[in-house]
Amino acid sequence: MANGIRVTVWNENRHEKTNEKVKSIYPRGIHGAIGDFLSREGMDVTTATLDEAEHGLTEEVLARTDVLIWWGHQAHDEVKEEIVERVQKRVLEGMGLIVLHSGHFSKIFKKLMGTTCDLKWRDIGETERIWTVSPRHPIAEGIGESIRLEKEEMYGEFFDIPEPEELVFVSWFEGGEVFRSGCTYTRGLGKVFYFRPGHETYPTYHQPEVQKVISNAVRWAASTAGNTPVFGNVEPAENLQRNMKS
Amino acid sequence: MANGIRVTVWNENRHEKTNEKVKSIYPRGIHGAIGDFLSREGMDVTTATLDEAEHGLTEEVLARTDVLIWWGHQAHDEVKEEIVERVQKRVLEGMGLIVLHSGHFSKIFKKLMGTTCDLKWRDIGETERIWTVSPRHPIAEGIGESIRLEKEEMYGEFFDIPEPEELVFVSWFEGGEVFRSGCTYTRGLGKVFYFRPGHETYPTYHQPEVQKVISNAVRWAASTAGNTPVFGNVEPAENLQRNMKS
Amino acid sequence: MANGIRVTVWNENRHEKTNEKVKSIYPRGIHGAIGDFLSREGMDVTTATLDEAEHGLTEEVLARTDVLIWWGHQAHDEVKEEIVERVQKRVLEGMGLIVLHSGHFSKIFKKLMGTTCDLKWRDIGETERIWTVSPRHPIAEGIGESIRLEKEEMYGEFFDIPEPEELVFVSWFEGGEVFRSGCTYTRGLGKVFYFRPGHETYPTYHQPEVQKVISNAVRWAASTAGNTPVFGNVEPAENLQRNMKS
Amino acid sequence: MANGIRVTVWNENRHEKTNEKVKSIYPRGIHGAIGDFLSREGMDVTTATLDEAEHGLTEEVLARTDVLIWWGHQAHDEVKEEIVERVQKRVLEGMGLIVLHSGHFSKIFKKLMGTTCDLKWRDIGETERIWTVSPRHPIAEGIGESIRLEKEEMYGEFFDIPEPEELVFVSWFEGGEVFRSGCTYTRGLGKVFYFRPGHETYPTYHQPEVQKVISNAVRWAASTAGNTPVFGNVEPAENLQRNMKS
Repeated sequence: MANGIRVTVWNENRHEKTNEKVKSIYPRGIHGAIGDFLSREGMDVTTATLDEAEHGLTEEVLARTDVLIWWGHQAHDEVKEEIVERVQKRVLEGMGLIVLHSGHFSKIFKKLMGTTCDLKWRDIGETERIWTVSPRHPIAEGIGESIRLEKEEMYGEFFDIPEPEELVFVSWFEGGEVFRSGCTYTRGLGKVFYFRPGHETYPTYHQPEVQKVISNAVRWAASTAGNTPVFGNVEPAENLQRNMKS
Repeated sequence: MANGIRVTVWNENRHEKTNEKVKSIYPRGIHGAIGDFLSREGMDVTTATLDEAEHGLTEEVLARTDVLIWWGHQAHDEVKEEIVERVQKRVLEGMGLIVLHSGHFSKIFKKLMGTTCDLKWRDIGETERIWTVSPRHPIAEGIGESIRLEKEEMYGEFFDIPEPEELVFVSWFEGGEVFRSGCTYTRGLGKVFYFRPGHETYPTYHQPEVQKVISNAVRWAASTAGNTPVFGNVEPAENLQRNMKS
Repeated sequence: MANGIRVTVWNENRHEKTNEKVKSIYPRGIHGAIGDFLSREGMDVTTATLDEAEHGLTEEVLARTDVLIWWGHQAHDEVKEEIVERVQKRVLEGMGLIVLHSGHFSKIFKKLMGTTCDLKWRDIGETERIWTVSPRHPIAEGIGESIRLEKEEMYGEFFDIPEPEELVFVSWFEGGEVFRSGCTYTRGLGKVFYFRPGHETYPTYHQPEVQKVISNAVRWAASTAGNTPVFGNVEPAENLQRNMKS
Repeated sequence: MANGIRVTVWNENRHEKTNEKVKSIYPRGIHGAIGDFLSREGMDVTTATLDEAEHGLTEEVLARTDVLIWWGHQAHDEVKEEIVERVQKRVLEGMGLIVLHSGHFSKIFKKLMGTTCDLKWRDIGETERIWTVSPRHPIAEGIGESIRLEKEEMYGEFFDIPEPEELVFVSWFEGGEVFRSGCTYTRGLGKVFYFRPGHETYPTYHQPEVQKVISNAVRWAASTAGNTPVFGNVEPAENLQRNMKS
């Protein structure tokens, strides 16, 4: 049922230009790798990157985006406030948003959460096991008990986010930490999903189970019903007006 | 997308046999009326009633039910404990459950909630307005701001249920009360939705917006992903066994 | 147990200067009225207003504030971004925040929620009934089933906020609307409570039950445990380091 | 502030009678050990065990219990249904309940949750680290980032419980699993806390941080406000009756 979902994959795309290791893992960029597997699912994929005009996120691009995926790391500060507000507005109107890994510190995620979104971390290439704690959630569909990532960066608690509406995944790390790795939120009419893995120096987004989670999340985030709310000054119901005057 | 969803509509079906007014509103029973509009949506509908053998809820019937709808009122006590446990087991395995109106006091709802499920009530045929407080929820899809029911029984707070996972609707009553009218829960792999309206002496289930909510709820409750969890005694991961012995 | 709780009551304090009706209801300002009843509870009360230097919210004032109360309406835009960020930082560090009535549109509330916080409204002086839907919540302590406000401004759904962590109160309005009137959140180490009533032209904050809710909320918001989290780069546990090298 | 809280510590007390190792760790029973440290906090402690008349949980005992602690394991089936219903009734009326470790499979916990409460387990004496994921929660007060238990039984996800209202702790296990170890619920007017650790063959309840969590939980569970709800048939508000007749 993924046909017709219009996904924009946004990537900072800086590590890929300067770090040989990252370039070799993701020769077409992290956005390229993510876009590829979503396209194979029949989704209508566009990519956008930091160094494009308006970071590639023009009004027109966002207007025809059902779900936006966000990966950023070293250049969060370079994202213009105006574009962040534009993205927030679209989320509140119903666009889905999937925030990946170091995107926890992106301006858009912090703006939607209201917190620092800070956490602990360690990058020594340790094993991560991502456990499903909500097996009935559509984002966990087809994922078994757990996903094993041979080498990843560690993220540890306390993760300073609002209590997730639904906690879908919890990570275990070889070095002794845990992390709430799959968290859902609604903001306005938009659905938001944070998914932890994906450090740029590991081939995480090539791993089929990780791809499956992201595909599921896109489908979940695109499914918003979208009744447009009415705001502002209103009259009482007609029959009640009579009573209220009596 | 409703094709193929297998719905069983369960009804106590006693008022329809003894009360002329109810009979005139629902000549084929409340289950008949609900089954009719779900069938028109392309769903695969079965009905079951209290006075059938095993209340119509045999192992076979439940095994081929994706979503069970429950309406009961004056004969909750006649529902056999064995059947209630059978239904609970199927919910925990992933069958959806929609509990309507006076079903709040059914054995199956109380068993899944763990509380008394008690509330306040008044039946003088007053106006109810059901407000959407979660416009992005799939159960509210196509429902505007509110549904107006000209005459209904009143249910008032405090409603003794666990805090809903998602609160979709809140009712306003002419006589001065409010009520959490649309509440979602997950229990095991199953999704549960409680929907307030539907007193037997009013034509509530003939109203298109009410039918729309119930159809939406069936689709929502049928969508469980259904990863079967593993329980019991397990070994540590192989590579960790080595470390643990060292 | 309220002794020692340091409360700062912040008020825009503009209506009181220009509107005779408001001045007559709150001769010492809304902040004065709220400060008075909190002082009588034994709390250590300070007030602060928009037109003071730094809006009265200096670093020093916030550093010795356990709970901040916020009332604003027509001059939200005049609150400086720098002060809003200062308040947010203190909330995330553990300061409680009580946002009243039209404060739903304040910069600080929108920043902590991540949404528009928009709603419907009507000011014709209609009756409001505030129903307790979480009778076990400390904020509802001593409040019976409901509070009746003879005349108030109406606020109606959809209220564009994140799903509350706990929904304590729901309002009924004579003109036909409902509203989620008492909503709790945690943000970082801070607790946040939104409480609906208190339009400036009605004597709402003189009503004992309303005062009771606000006092309860201050006590609740002041009770944060306050374990200071550790963020940033960390080493693995010592005994695990050995395993990880093997 | 624990003075005056009346705690009843319930223990199955069978392992202590038959297993020398358990007897040597808890010579006065698990209930004795827990009762001791709660008494030192100034609480008013009673103990009760399975083999007493009415399992030690008479109407009188429960009527003067603010918080009940429950430890059971091998004899869940011997707990009489009548006593379970009595305990449930008291929880719904406002008594706090702390369920420990293998109590996840007790009749009372399953009855309040509505699910199987099943999980995975392994008992090879591996290290557990219990991480605080809600540092502002009163149950985590004074607990740092994590608690380390040198040797414990492992419990792993999926843990078949309703989504916790607040998730306070998550456990990491040496063998590769994670577990939602500290979960809060409200049922009726009662607060419920599930806390994972405490296998009978390890000295877990002698560890100060574990004692601190249990003491905190008792204080938290005892703090219910306790507005007694009104249920049943009610009249409309007097002023509204007039309108409704017009």
